[in-house]
Amino acid sequence: MIVDVRDIYKDVSKYIDKEVVLQGWVRNHRRQKEFGFIDFSDGTAFKNIQLVYDNSLKDFESIAKIKVGSSLEVRGMVIKSEGSLQEFEVKVLNIKLLGDCPDEYPIQPKRHTREFLREQAYLRPRTNLFNAVFRVRSIAAMAIHTYFQERGYVYFHAPLITASDCEGAGQMFQVTTLDLDRVAKSGNVDYSKDFFGKTTALTVSGQLEAETFAMAYKKVYTFGPTFRAENSNTKTHASEFWMIEPEIAFCDLNGVMDIEEDMLKYIVKYVLEHAKDEMEFFSKYVEKGLIEKLTKLINSKFTRISHHDVIKILKEAKVKWEFEPEYGEDIAREHEKYITEYFDGPVFITDWPKDIKAFYMKLNPDNETVAAVDLEVPGAGELIGGSEREADYDKLIKRMKELNMDPASMEWYLNLRKFGGCYHSGFGLGFERLLIYLTGVENIRDVIPYPRTPGNCDF
Amino acid sequence: MIVDVRDIYKDVSKYIDKEVVLQGWVRNHRRQKEFGFIDFSDGTAFKNIQLVYDNSLKDFESIAKIKVGSSLEVRGMVIKSEGSLQEFEVKVLNIKLLGDCPDEYPIQPKRHTREFLREQAYLRPRTNLFNAVFRVRSIAAMAIHTYFQERGYVYFHAPLITASDCEGAGQMFQVTTLDLDRVAKSGNVDYSKDFFGKTTALTVSGQLEAETFAMAYKKVYTFGPTFRAENSNTKTHASEFWMIEPEIAFCDLNGVMDIEEDMLKYIVKYVLEHAKDEMEFFSKYVEKGLIEKLTKLINSKFTRISHHDVIKILKEAKVKWEFEPEYGEDIAREHEKYITEYFDGPVFITDWPKDIKAFYMKLNPDNETVAAVDLEVPGAGELIGGSEREADYDKLIKRMKELNMDPASMEWYLNLRKFGGCYHSGFGLGFERLLIYLTGVENIRDVIPYPRTPGNCDF
Repeated sequence: MIVDVRDIYKDVSKYIDKEVVLQGWVRNHRRQKEFGFIDFSDGTAFKNIQLVYDNSLKDFESIAKIKVGSSLEVRGMVIKSEGSLQEFEVKVLNIKLLGDCPDEYPIQPKRHTREFLREQAYLRPRTNLFNAVFRVRSIAAMAIHTYFQERGYVYFHAPLITASDCEGAGQMFQVTTLDLDRVAKSGNVDYSKDFFGKTTALTVSGQLEAETFAMAYKKVYTFGPTFRAENSNTKTHASEFWMIEPEIAFCDLNGVMDIEEDMLKYIVKYVLEHAKDEMEFFSKYVEKGLIEKLTKLINSKFTRISHHDVIKILKEAKVKWEFEPEYGEDIAREHEKYITEYFDGPVFITDWPKDIKAFYMKLNPDNETVAAVDLEVPGAGELIGGSEREADYDKLIKRMKELNMDPASMEWYLNLRKFGGCYHSGFGLGFERLLIYLTGVENIRDVIPYPRTPGNCDF
Repeated sequence: MIVDVRDIYKDVSKYIDKEVVLQGWVRNHRRQKEFGFIDFSDGTAFKNIQLVYDNSLKDFESIAKIKVGSSLEVRGMVIKSEGSLQEFEVKVLNIKLLGDCPDEYPIQPKRHTREFLREQAYLRPRTNLFNAVFRVRSIAAMAIHTYFQERGYVYFHAPLITASDCEGAGQMFQVTTLDLDRVAKSGNVDYSKDFFGKTTALTVSGQLEAETFAMAYKKVYTFGPTFRAENSNTKTHASEFWMIEPEIAFCDLNGVMDIEEDMLKYIVKYVLEHAKDEMEFFSKYVEKGLIEKLTKLINSKFTRISHHDVIKILKEAKVKWEFEPEYGEDIAREHEKYITEYFDGPVFITDWPKDIKAFYMKLNPDNETVAAVDLEVPGAGELIGGSEREADYDKLIKRMKELNMDPASMEWYLNLRKFGGCYHSGFGLGFERLLIYLTGVENIRDVIPYPRTPGNCDF
């Protein structure tokens, strides 16, 4: 019977003293004179299985030569382990070598730097660390889908190639089928010959389109890739990353904070439950105390405070700031840190100065701030950004004009305010930022299978 | 108590004779002298709710003026309906108009052509048809995630921007941050100045990268966007679409057929269960007998037959073909149709001539065919394409050279065959093709929220 290692770990008692067939890879191999041990993984579980073989096997000699990285088909008995390290092991009856592996195989059982493993991105999920990271990535994605679908949200696929620009910012990747050599030769660019007959780019956000669907389904969410052609080489920036952007009609700023808090706690709980071994590994070897940090989040009440009151606290703090906190301005990493420590937990900062926030955010009655909210989380900084959207047609047009945006180009977006408009809110969660928080792995390059950053587009 | 319409339909008895607050939109409004009826939707359910109001309300006059498309907050009693059309209705106690809607609102309660609604893509989810389509899209996506996650597959996010080209085909969208006007002016293209320092494009498939993860996790799947810059304006082609690409180590061609059949039946069952109202609507108004078609699929045993034997059957058929079937060649739509009718159910066609299939497919011992499989489904044509992958390093290099591909550029892919390689298989399912099959809606433009096709990139 061919079984997944995952199934054995799910219910060992079912397999004890039974014969099984396993297919997978050699992670480590320790040989003695008369017997040997193979750390064996089929990738379906974080934990390996120990294979034990001895010289009663007729092909003992050839088995002893099997190299790290090789793929095997193993027939053996699941038996209670004599050793104390594992509950059970598999006593080998027969091993078939399916795929050999040469000595120059880069993933030998020793410490590798994360930089080295980034260069070997196609092999790194075979290491403990990355095996755990990318399984947690998968589980966290499922947590998100489950959360929203159980609550009646419609999953909306935002278009990736777009002719509009959500943030009004530049820094987008252009998408074209024009032959650039021909463009260079001809001396001019004729977009009427381009695939879509105009300039197009990769989206930086699916929010505006998600709003159109929220006006039909009440509750929707996106979960898809977004792109930024930002030339920054930091630990938290990638050119291609995944975003979750829920959008909810008949929901105000307080309502969207309720959803953010509930969703985040749900995801954390789900991952702790569904990735026990991986999370224990991270908590032990990657970020000491990770599980305690996450458990504390689940049990905490998130604080809600306005940007104004945050600045007041920062100004009154007896701290020598690198950046002086100011009303009307953004806050720095050191401020975020101070505030989450001050409240000893996650903090929603609301009602931000309009000039540092996006055009679509609802203007508050003070005419100076907008109904925006950033969620600051201890150890993660800003994790989620959201807002109530401007539902007033005239105010929205006015704001767009102030920012030199062309209302005509976004007629459809404006029309949402004319055709049965309503108060509505939404937020954006960067999936990789969440994964950094969940795993303790610090660099965004290490939580994306094949990261794209300035100058790097391999595989 | 603010409730979603969805929750009332889930358990009407819980709400009968209770007061509720609803928030949503007016789909239709029929006025009489002394009372009126509003077809009301909050988007959380396919079915509307009927609001009934009469002139005992003090603002009867203004309520009677409420226009189609407007957004409302309604307080009312859920009561058993006197009429026979619906089980219950809501007797209005109070209506607050949240957002008005002018007479020129395009989505009036009358028949609209799908072409017209495509132009109003941002409003079309407010119609019955598209409301159903995009909710089924969401539910089908969840079916796919649930299927794979429950079976221990790891969800893998393939990179979208890529420097490699899976199919060895052209027709990719180029991704660039070069200023095209400057390129035209300068007269040459300097890719060292491009964002990634080289030419990059949007991926046409995540398969090759998925294989690298299958070699670590045994079972993985992608579910993400892919792109084709194909200049074709057919009902089944879009430039941006979503694909599901599972990849399984230690799995041969028969194994992958088992998975395809099991998965497809699971998805169909899941959608029939989770989207009852929508599917009944499609079956009644879009494709007569749709539910019977899908139920038949669930209960059928899929046939498995080689391409060679299919051609034999086609040649022996007493049919005047438009395209003469030939050994060694691809089959046409008319052949697909004949074969699924011949076997009265879905048909796996295996072992295709190598020259019409991709380089990575496993060469059969006959040296002429490859271990590829297309799934032909009655009423859908080719729904899934899969294959066992070439696991032999030397054969793979030989094939690449025959096809003028550069093995050096895909060293990492080739190395999978050197570092503990094993037999493995996978397949690709076009998500929109599946949706066309599930809903009976014929045009791919009508199952993608914001479709991108040659010359069309709106919203």
